[in-house]
Amino acid sequence: MIIYLATNNKHKLKEINEIKPKNIQIKGMFEILKDFEVNEDGKTFLENSIKKAIETAHVLRAPVIADDSGLEIKILNGFPGVYSARFMENYSYKDKMKYILKKLENVPFEKRDARFVCSATYYNPKNNILFSVEGEVKGKIAFSILGKKGFGYDPIFIPNGETLTFGQLGESIKNKISHRKRAFEKLFSLLINIPKLEIIS
Amino acid sequence: MIIYLATNNKHKLKEINEIKPKNIQIKGMFEILKDFEVNEDGKTFLENSIKKAIETAHVLRAPVIADDSGLEIKILNGFPGVYSARFMENYSYKDKMKYILKKLENVPFEKRDARFVCSATYYNPKNNILFSVEGEVKGKIAFSILGKKGFGYDPIFIPNGETLTFGQLGESIKNKISHRKRAFEKLFSLLINIPKLEIIS
Repeated sequence: MIIYLATNNKHKLKEINEIKPKNIQIKGMFEILKDFEVNEDGKTFLENSIKKAIETAHVLRAPVIADDSGLEIKILNGFPGVYSARFMENYSYKDKMKYILKKLENVPFEKRDARFVCSATYYNPKNNILFSVEGEVKGKIAFSILGKKGFGYDPIFIPNGETLTFGQLGESIKNKISHRKRAFEKLFSLLINIPKLEIIS
Repeated sequence: MIIYLATNNKHKLKEINEIKPKNIQIKGMFEILKDFEVNEDGKTFLENSIKKAIETAHVLRAPVIADDSGLEIKILNGFPGVYSARFMENYSYKDKMKYILKKLENVPFEKRDARFVCSATYYNPKNNILFSVEGEVKGKIAFSILGKKGFGYDPIFIPNGETLTFGQLGESIKNKISHRKRAFEKLFSLLINIPKLEIIS
């Protein structure tokens, strides 16, 4: 079974390839589709990952997996959430993190709950089967930007059970417990069971 | 496990209740939600069933199954398809069928291929798990309106393997082989296997 990953990010392809089951082959969308991008204008991670999977699969005429993810801060009602990548669009992540830390200036540690969420979707345009699942990693927002590893909001996110941020822990530890890993593991669990589920006619 | 069916149609609830597994309880949305309707403006059955499931589940704050279905005629490039219910909106199905028969006037039997399609979606807002599957029944478009049983386009649809239309065969036979039954059977097969799939965290 060959499935395309709806991404232009080689790094993400490598990450997914490390957790995929043996009998599934993952190819990057970018290997056959140049300059293709889906407008991620959904109101939720779920909407965006579904949209990305369907639109990409219709162009490729092949099964696709897609994901959308971001950071949700509880006391900010889930902000930045689905806008994680897009808010303050012309600013660096360093500036975005400074903005968030400022907003949480007077919030004590026990109320700084946050989670990284990833919605992952599989869609096969040949039989119109679609699955979406979600993975999360819970944690707290640190009081300052700590560590230079990882990317995005990693330097302000301390996963539960750790005392350091993802920015300090680095990607090898992050990838072991990440929201994306958890989401894709669930998706692969479904995919390898499809033949047994008798849902293909 | 209690799941709501996103419908105001008691007849549909009865139909689904006849094929559901024992350990799943299905309730009609109309039992607790009055005058609620989702705007089915999607471009595909899949889009509409996903939209209906998600919007209904967010209002009910409970797992929901929803479906969207229609007739696709091959030589008309899938028309009426997702517009099955909405095209010639102020006309009766009799008038809609007459319009279709007129369009197919000179088309021989072997080129009158059609299928009834149903996209069925399950969505649980608590863990953001979503599945969509499709069921279909293939057949031909008759040369005239035949039979008074069933509803919609049943009187012009002859399922493969039969010589009569669904309008002549009646609902008890239709329900045994219908697109909706096939879609919901697949969905239930997935649902009863969820606990084994380790996709709930």
